[in-house]
Amino acid sequence: MFITFEGIDGCGKTTQLNLLHKYLKDIGYNVLTTREPGSTPLAEKLRNVLLNMEYNISSVSEILMFEAARAELVDSVIHPAICRKQIVLSDRFYDSTIAYQGFGRQQNIDDIKLLNKITIREIIPNFTFLLDIPYSVSLERRFGSIDDRIESTGNAFYERVIAGYRSIAEEEPDRVKMIDATQSKEDIFHQIIQIVKPALPPI
Amino acid sequence: MFITFEGIDGCGKTTQLNLLHKYLKDIGYNVLTTREPGSTPLAEKLRNVLLNMEYNISSVSEILMFEAARAELVDSVIHPAICRKQIVLSDRFYDSTIAYQGFGRQQNIDDIKLLNKITIREIIPNFTFLLDIPYSVSLERRFGSIDDRIESTGNAFYERVIAGYRSIAEEEPDRVKMIDATQSKEDIFHQIIQIVKPALPPI
Repeated sequence: MFITFEGIDGCGKTTQLNLLHKYLKDIGYNVLTTREPGSTPLAEKLRNVLLNMEYNISSVSEILMFEAARAELVDSVIHPAICRKQIVLSDRFYDSTIAYQGFGRQQNIDDIKLLNKITIREIIPNFTFLLDIPYSVSLERRFGSIDDRIESTGNAFYERVIAGYRSIAEEEPDRVKMIDATQSKEDIFHQIIQIVKPALPPI
Repeated sequence: MFITFEGIDGCGKTTQLNLLHKYLKDIGYNVLTTREPGSTPLAEKLRNVLLNMEYNISSVSEILMFEAARAELVDSVIHPAICRKQIVLSDRFYDSTIAYQGFGRQQNIDDIKLLNKITIREIIPNFTFLLDIPYSVSLERRFGSIDDRIESTGNAFYERVIAGYRSIAEEEPDRVKMIDATQSKEDIFHQIIQIVKPALPPI
């Protein structure tokens, strides 16, 4: 089983991922958590370059570097874990590239879908939780923290990312579950559990 | 005008590129030389990661990183130089990915062609000089130098790369000019000049 968490920065996806990790572990599952970009030595190196303010990175190059980090993560971490029957939870996955680079940076979405297909091969999440918050809430929650290269892109960019995420959820309602993430973390987690529980494999 | 040089390590492409650079400059052209992967701060960073023995890099990830470095080079160096009417010479370009990763590492060639198309957009070389040498000659010429991550892949890999390059030359004879690079550097350069000279734009 493979579950991913998506949404803009400050939406609470890391908190929910950790809650689900703990819940699944407590009832006896073997769970693995990954984050994107990252989770392998090469992908963490690429993460550092991608989020570093020092580099000028063209939009196409940015997409390809995210995809390179993803290919490495799928091949060396996610695919082997699924083969070992672990439950894999990922903080971001390919929807992030469609939302941020496709909708946000207005790059060709068909090209990105094609790249995603090359990168992930057959590894598609069973569920993707999209934690939906307005940009203003994201700003409030991130108040005082320093922006990385992508977070510093600004208002109009983030509005397009949010709209992009919503359109992904509309396109694939069976996989992508959109949750109003202005609710309390307990309420959000309750909704996630209602969806995950019936689909869990036998321990 | 855009001219690329291809071939396995030790084939003499850097020597020929430098000779052509000097020749064109001496007769009054404004020439720019690039190398792949590299030639921009981001691409040089990716080059270091790609050629570094320390990282385990999956084949798909390797392709995507080369393409990311290429996208950056095209957008920020090659395309602007061509717009300024400079003659651009590049030590390797997209044929390297087809030969090394497609034929050498036996990755999906259609996927690589698609990636190349996304990366280079409309920037296709006017001429590509493929300097063809047997693997044994490459080994002799590189004797005593330390292999990087890709050079250390071994014999059968290089035989596939050489065959791959030859099939690219057969597929696109108008663009890709294969030259027997076991000849002297003067003879090779003479053949290159015979092809380039009639195609030069007015100074």
